Amino acid sequence: MITLISSTNRPNSVSLMVTQQYAHMLEQRGESTQIISLEAMPDDFLGTALYHNSGKNEHFNLLRSQVEEAQKFAFIIPEYNGSFPGVLKLFIDGLKFPGTLRNKKAGLIGVSSGIQGGALALSHINDVFNYLGMHVMANRVKLYKIEDKLQDGKVADPQFVQLLERHADQLIQF
Amino acid sequence: MITLISSTNRPNSVSLMVTQQYAHMLEQRGESTQIISLEAMPDDFLGTALYHNSGKNEHFNLLRSQVEEAQKFAFIIPEYNGSFPGVLKLFIDGLKFPGTLRNKKAGLIGVSSGIQGGALALSHINDVFNYLGMHVMANRVKLYKIEDKLQDGKVADPQFVQLLERHADQLIQF
Amino acid sequence: MITLISSTNRPNSVSLMVTQQYAHMLEQRGESTQIISLEAMPDDFLGTALYHNSGKNEHFNLLRSQVEEAQKFAFIIPEYNGSFPGVLKLFIDGLKFPGTLRNKKAGLIGVSSGIQGGALALSHINDVFNYLGMHVMANRVKLYKIEDKLQDGKVADPQFVQLLERHADQLIQF
Amino acid sequence: MITLISSTNRPNSVSLMVTQQYAHMLEQRGESTQIISLEAMPDDFLGTALYHNSGKNEHFNLLRSQVEEAQKFAFIIPEYNGSFPGVLKLFIDGLKFPGTLRNKKAGLIGVSSGIQGGALALSHINDVFNYLGMHVMANRVKLYKIEDKLQDGKVADPQFVQLLERHADQLIQF
Repeated sequence: MITLISSTNRPNSVSLMVTQQYAHMLEQRGESTQIISLEAMPDDFLGTALYHNSGKNEHFNLLRSQVEEAQKFAFIIPEYNGSFPGVLKLFIDGLKFPGTLRNKKAGLIGVSSGIQGGALALSHINDVFNYLGMHVMANRVKLYKIEDKLQDGKVADPQFVQLLERHADQLIQF
Repeated sequence: MITLISSTNRPNSVSLMVTQQYAHMLEQRGESTQIISLEAMPDDFLGTALYHNSGKNEHFNLLRSQVEEAQKFAFIIPEYNGSFPGVLKLFIDGLKFPGTLRNKKAGLIGVSSGIQGGALALSHINDVFNYLGMHVMANRVKLYKIEDKLQDGKVADPQFVQLLERHADQLIQF
Repeated sequence: MITLISSTNRPNSVSLMVTQQYAHMLEQRGESTQIISLEAMPDDFLGTALYHNSGKNEHFNLLRSQVEEAQKFAFIIPEYNGSFPGVLKLFIDGLKFPGTLRNKKAGLIGVSSGIQGGALALSHINDVFNYLGMHVMANRVKLYKIEDKLQDGKVADPQFVQLLERHADQLIQF
Repeated sequence: MITLISSTNRPNSVSLMVTQQYAHMLEQRGESTQIISLEAMPDDFLGTALYHNSGKNEHFNLLRSQVEEAQKFAFIIPEYNGSFPGVLKLFIDGLKFPGTLRNKKAGLIGVSSGIQGGALALSHINDVFNYLGMHVMANRVKLYKIEDKLQDGKVADPQFVQLLERHADQLIQF
């Protein structure tokens, strides 16, 4: 079972499309999957789920439980302002500390409109995950200029499809 | 005028203490200051201030206006999970894009309970600010093991006080 | 006077071409320039210019003197193995410590055959320069897929030329 | 078999001491080890082992062969100027490209005189290793203020010893 995190709360995001396509690739390889879209982050998160309120937001607790039980992840991360989205870090800051991610495993996929493919976003989040004790697979896929590579809501560019498929193969083995 | 950003919404944070002390240092040097504490981030931010809602949250728009008018910043940034707090990145993701920070200037101060002093947090946020076109002063102060260095709600450790004072001197000139 | 560092010792490098073109842009704007190509790094550097030998290599001392006297730099940095070239860091490790770069200023230009344009290389070197007290201009130019953009030994792609010219304008003001 | 890389060519380095002590910990746990000290980097490396000379330096080729055959590594990395030593990156730049490190595994240990313990050095090198396809273990040990923790040429501080031992246990399993 691999848990995929679509790492933005933007409605109808490209990241969610990529997440669904990547989940399908994993399923085709015989791997079961579940998707957590950060669209599910509760609107009142900032006031109800951090610090003295940690663990008190019932809605967020459902996400926390899913993450606690999961062992292997794929994070699909759009580049916002040269790094990962604030909402992704907020999601991580809201997890039970320490230990929710320790000794678990993750693969990273970056998505950007521009040319970087989230290179810095993935570097930054790698630091975060290592700090929390989660191993990160070496292969970081960087889907740059993503809008040019989509067709009918899916990544259609053959090179990008191949990058995702190889990543899926590796993540199953990781 | 230097605008100080206490970069967490945690109530009664050490970062806010440091921010106030640093503001005082700037004032003593004849510089006027204003403080924005991210405690002011509206609780419903996630659902009301991003993407199609950008610019629609009246409460956040007050913060946006302050940032738009400001020219020079000091960010006091606690280390959360090996990077900057999610709420700080969220704050940045909510600014008018592009251009709110372009050609402006900032100094960075990291704060941590552990030994890093936010070294990675400051590296990550430097990437974000450079991406957005804001120049960052070279001198990054890293206040590690901060709880051991406080007395009566202020940084009392002489070495840390000196680091902050030198940073203040440089930021005024930057 | 701006000192340009072509940050590889590879003979006939693309980075040196870009460096020369960028120098010409600066000259056209009335700025004087000098170029240091790391091709000038002495072959026996590893055994003669570090640690107990620091300052003893006459050949390298010429480069050290140039760097000590310079106040503003442009580093043209090819991406090698996902970061800056080892020889660039070696060059920096060989400078008189501390203080050679303190309070000086630099602009960064990344060059790559691949798609990143040296995004990570520039992030890493920014950390190094900030550590050494040198201010780095926010605008990081990333010249990706450089081989596709050259003609007659010069960057011919109009978008890239514009990026370099804007960078030159800003660096003169920085 | 774990291959340990003492990542500086400084004679009699603290990093080499730590490397030897860490090798001993691995041996005590029944793991065989070999040490590569970058003191073995040939003095004339810059002129004889890169680019058109890649693979032509017989002395360096011995190191290349050792790295090619090795499957799991520990890098003991001193912090030089806010990052890894230039000589370490040079060593990597001199390996056969691509593929020498692909699908291999590494653990990281940082060493510093100052307070960072090589936090940024380890972040930077992690980016390099991931770029080259080598998986990096999450747990990054950061031995800060190392001179204060040594006795008789060994890390004597009990907390640091424990950090190294836990790292050794994990690396054997990784």
